[in-house]
Amino acid sequence: MKVCKFGGTSLANAEQIRKVCQIILNDETRRLIVVSAPGKRYKEDGKVTDLLITFGTKKIEHGQAQKEWQAVVDRYQEICSELQLPLSCMEAIISNLQKLLQWDGEDPEGFMDVVKASGEDNCARVVTEYLRTLGASATYINPRDAGLLVNGEYGNAQVLPEAYEKLAQLKEKDGLLIFPGFFGFTQEGKLTTFSRGGSDVTGSILAAAVKAELYENFTDVDSVYAVNPNLVDHPCEIKEITYREMRELSYAGFSVFHEEALIPAFRAEIPVCIKNTNNPTAPGTKIVTKRDNSSRIVAGIASDVGFCRIYVSKYLMNKEIGFGRKLLQILEEEHLSYEHSPSGIDDITVILRQHQLTEEKEARIVSRIKNELHVDDVHVQYNMALVMLVGEGMRSSVGISARAATALAIADINIEMINQGSSEVNLMFGVSAGDADNAVIALYQEFYKEEELSLGIC
Amino acid sequence: MKVCKFGGTSLANAEQIRKVCQIILNDETRRLIVVSAPGKRYKEDGKVTDLLITFGTKKIEHGQAQKEWQAVVDRYQEICSELQLPLSCMEAIISNLQKLLQWDGEDPEGFMDVVKASGEDNCARVVTEYLRTLGASATYINPRDAGLLVNGEYGNAQVLPEAYEKLAQLKEKDGLLIFPGFFGFTQEGKLTTFSRGGSDVTGSILAAAVKAELYENFTDVDSVYAVNPNLVDHPCEIKEITYREMRELSYAGFSVFHEEALIPAFRAEIPVCIKNTNNPTAPGTKIVTKRDNSSRIVAGIASDVGFCRIYVSKYLMNKEIGFGRKLLQILEEEHLSYEHSPSGIDDITVILRQHQLTEEKEARIVSRIKNELHVDDVHVQYNMALVMLVGEGMRSSVGISARAATALAIADINIEMINQGSSEVNLMFGVSAGDADNAVIALYQEFYKEEELSLGIC
Repeated sequence: MKVCKFGGTSLANAEQIRKVCQIILNDETRRLIVVSAPGKRYKEDGKVTDLLITFGTKKIEHGQAQKEWQAVVDRYQEICSELQLPLSCMEAIISNLQKLLQWDGEDPEGFMDVVKASGEDNCARVVTEYLRTLGASATYINPRDAGLLVNGEYGNAQVLPEAYEKLAQLKEKDGLLIFPGFFGFTQEGKLTTFSRGGSDVTGSILAAAVKAELYENFTDVDSVYAVNPNLVDHPCEIKEITYREMRELSYAGFSVFHEEALIPAFRAEIPVCIKNTNNPTAPGTKIVTKRDNSSRIVAGIASDVGFCRIYVSKYLMNKEIGFGRKLLQILEEEHLSYEHSPSGIDDITVILRQHQLTEEKEARIVSRIKNELHVDDVHVQYNMALVMLVGEGMRSSVGISARAATALAIADINIEMINQGSSEVNLMFGVSAGDADNAVIALYQEFYKEEELSLGIC
Repeated sequence: MKVCKFGGTSLANAEQIRKVCQIILNDETRRLIVVSAPGKRYKEDGKVTDLLITFGTKKIEHGQAQKEWQAVVDRYQEICSELQLPLSCMEAIISNLQKLLQWDGEDPEGFMDVVKASGEDNCARVVTEYLRTLGASATYINPRDAGLLVNGEYGNAQVLPEAYEKLAQLKEKDGLLIFPGFFGFTQEGKLTTFSRGGSDVTGSILAAAVKAELYENFTDVDSVYAVNPNLVDHPCEIKEITYREMRELSYAGFSVFHEEALIPAFRAEIPVCIKNTNNPTAPGTKIVTKRDNSSRIVAGIASDVGFCRIYVSKYLMNKEIGFGRKLLQILEEEHLSYEHSPSGIDDITVILRQHQLTEEKEARIVSRIKNELHVDDVHVQYNMALVMLVGEGMRSSVGISARAATALAIADINIEMINQGSSEVNLMFGVSAGDADNAVIALYQEFYKEEELSLGIC
């Protein structure tokens, strides 16, 4: 049994929904289908979820939001008409949406989650109905009935461990099961949404629960690329990548996946395939637990900006047991999350995302480090970028760091930091933010050579 | 005014003491002279300090140690005879040493410090007396009278801040001042020795106290070398090196100086020159606060073995505020001092000196990390070496790490870790212990090229 998740652009209009249903029907092992809310039909279009948020916000603020409500209804109306669905389908959707108009003003946060979730929920009804008109046996599954239990943090629900056992029973049901993404219910029956990318989370949870042979995640790109396509023309497509590689690339700016969405699938060792609704025969990118890395050691290259470094030096620091711990404790007490803390003999650098620091907070931290740790020097440097070369097996390959550092040197990029050996999967360079793009391009050119690309070894 | 310190081999016998006194008299700004105890005259010889320790140990254990005592007396006797010193000098030494025979059995640790210190103390008397026979005005200075105040930790005395003001008065004295190294006195008048290399400490304190124009440290090598001379024939001599560079090189196995000896001189910004008693016209190696690094960015290359790495991985580690701090806290609670802790996204590595780990301690730490931090994986890898390229200005030079990593790759050395950017002075590679020497040689060949060496740019 495969679990398939279709994203918003795959469900944006009737034409896209026809493609989706054809994809579903083309493979009878595609049984459990997770849908997002209809997305953008064209670049300037609004997503249904955005329309719903506009409606909900106005309703909460002004009590009335008829025009905004109608905009949502219109999107579904257009889809239902074009798909020539039975009238009863649109009636059910309108009836569902009308309940939102009747909100009593209690618990606005909970109301907002209900509003947002209706996007996915009604889309699931549409897809179910359309599959039926095609003669398929399809059932809409309510996450509450199916047992998708979550904790009650609005907008940031976390699945409860007991949900998996309940959801596993979906395996026993016949026909196609259409499951709205993005939300679950608490033990008390309160609807709660996941954070951003929440339909990916639903798919990942279901794939883990039913022990799917594959979790297919349909989006609007043929595959994940080895490097940001805005930086390099026609970059190499990644055929296979491990969970760890994917996660490290996500960290440094790869945005294919909501970062935490994959955890349930990862823990259950379910392979994931990212595919294109508009080109479903393309092989896509497979995310696996292990891959053969003999043909390509480097899986991808990414970069992220907005880091700063706090540099601290103190003569004889390395003789002082507990110095590093005390420094990290100060940062923790100031609620700062740090990324790395490479250390020398008498100095240590802490790298963190700079949005966490205000001028006032910086001053307080610098003063605490000076006064509590009696250091010789402490200063903060902003606008650093981290550039990462990611690949399982890099650690045991001689010469990777030499090639990478040489490529950067030839591009006249000063390496402010190298972090290798902490992770077994990545090689990280700190450069100034202005050099980040050129660094990625230089590394791509070094590790993805013309001849390799033309041979398709990628 | 210069402060000069002469090491044990420079004072091992009459011939060496003649050289030392000639050096002193050749430069009238050499006014404050710190002496060690007589060292080895030939490779298999015993140092006077070792003879004293043998004597002291036996005296403490058996009450009697006449033979061992006589061995010490004989060394001084030989020196005094050959230098044709007045009889009164040897009589004073014997009288001083006889007090050790009359020890009452109280406070054996304090007794041992007194025994050890007599080596330097009597050597200072010999040098004073010999300088007088040469017609110089020389005065033996008792550290107690001069105010070299220390705390009372036997064998590991720390100078007290108030000592500097008292010692500064030495500037007002006329003639040559001969000061025994290695020990001071507590406020209560108890003699206490410094830890290993203690005469260097005395010299460093005096240089800081009198604000010496230079602290000359005479030993038995022409200079500090850029790399271990056991690995490379005729390695490049370091003409000038900064305190920070020296300290980083000391860390990784350079053993010219007792690591902490330089602190007082460093804090007072006194330049230090390491010179050879047997070749005093050689320029030696100068340790300075700042140097012109335009001609040579790399100051030296060193390596040290005996490190292990504790590798810890946990999915989503970087989302967990306080993870790194908690890990370091466990190590601190287990009394482990760590060297570095480079971190990836979901993993962190802690590098420490492996002599600290027993099999039992390793098992306990691994188990604590597993149970308290709920990690996915933790394992310990032994026998790692750290190889360091040290030089001020490396950080702002493009291409240094590329050259270094390439040199190691060509030598077929797998780089297990790179640590750059923490320190502004060093670039550190982790390699397996078996590769350490070859790594140093490869880096030396890369950064100290034939043509440069022949041009003397070094």
